[in-house]
Amino acid sequence: MEKIFDLADIENLERFYRVNFTTKISGIQSPNLIGTLDQNGNSNLAIFNSVIHISSNPPTLGFLQRPLTVHRQTYENIKMKGFFTINSVTTDFIKNAHQTSAKYSNGISEFEQCNFTEQYIDNFQIPFVKESPIKIGMSWEEEHLIQSSGNIFIVGKIQKIILDDSLLANDGNVLLEKINLAGVAGLDSYFKLEKIARFEFARP
Amino acid sequence: MEKIFDLADIENLERFYRVNFTTKISGIQSPNLIGTLDQNGNSNLAIFNSVIHISSNPPTLGFLQRPLTVHRQTYENIKMKGFFTINSVTTDFIKNAHQTSAKYSNGISEFEQCNFTEQYIDNFQIPFVKESPIKIGMSWEEEHLIQSSGNIFIVGKIQKIILDDSLLANDGNVLLEKINLAGVAGLDSYFKLEKIARFEFARP
Repeated sequence: MEKIFDLADIENLERFYRVNFTTKISGIQSPNLIGTLDQNGNSNLAIFNSVIHISSNPPTLGFLQRPLTVHRQTYENIKMKGFFTINSVTTDFIKNAHQTSAKYSNGISEFEQCNFTEQYIDNFQIPFVKESPIKIGMSWEEEHLIQSSGNIFIVGKIQKIILDDSLLANDGNVLLEKINLAGVAGLDSYFKLEKIARFEFARP
Repeated sequence: MEKIFDLADIENLERFYRVNFTTKISGIQSPNLIGTLDQNGNSNLAIFNSVIHISSNPPTLGFLQRPLTVHRQTYENIKMKGFFTINSVTTDFIKNAHQTSAKYSNGISEFEQCNFTEQYIDNFQIPFVKESPIKIGMSWEEEHLIQSSGNIFIVGKIQKIILDDSLLANDGNVLLEKINLAGVAGLDSYFKLEKIARFEFARP
């Protein structure tokens, strides 16, 4: 039976019900692991479900940081160093990737706790996730405070992309169907993906 | 073989290669159809691949609008009316949903051209997509100009959610696995989804 929730209904939902509900209604995203370093050189790794493409020129990606009402290691490290990495998540390691969302103490690395391997590539100063088939080195570019909730939309510029050349088609298409890329709904539900169509640029 | 692209390599890529490449490296998203009305009451419907959850309290979602270097019907309609709808896309109608990305002339509705049915629910003044299993009525709340590229990040507040109650678990979880929700990579590649895991809140 069709059910209609108005704003007042949603505001009156029990807190965990509302989180489960509102985080999933817009569909699925790709989880990504964001790698950073703190001022003492300790590595940090955290799963984010909000990485989106912004622009191809300049090449930029964005993601949402939760409000700074508590200590946010990833955010502080990004602001401190100016650089971070974005690493893809495959279904082979979703459990370990999910585990990076646990609140580990400062100085304890999720790389080690969650069985990921730090990989330094070229001169990029922040570790990539060796297990990730697509690795992106990013620089902080700008950020926008969402007034209504205190979240921060962070914009980064792509400085480096590392992937196996077998994933790249002649037209620049990335063959995501060749890796077991994971999808995620809300904060807890994981999906596998199967490519079913590629369409031409649409014309009336 | 592992391939490394630095920023200069990416900037020097042929334009369409660069778009294919950079729009897919961060993984997949859910496509959503955004419905609007213009000042004359003409409906508009357009596919967006960037809708993300921002906050549960207040309940907000965000999406990226491309730069206003050309006429952007969805954006102008949202600013004019203050309201819009976000409608889910299933694999049953990805071809029609993709077709809404074609540049139709002003006053020609993608609802009609792409075989979607306008549905008005309660007193919400903007049409929903009848075919979408999850329908969200939104109000414009704030927007942020991305300085580096001219994109606009639009924040909307959820005013109404319509879905079948069989999709809702007792804890507010939305059972996306019960609908054939589509995923999309970049601007052209569509995926079907299969749920494989739901994990508990992670603790160290």
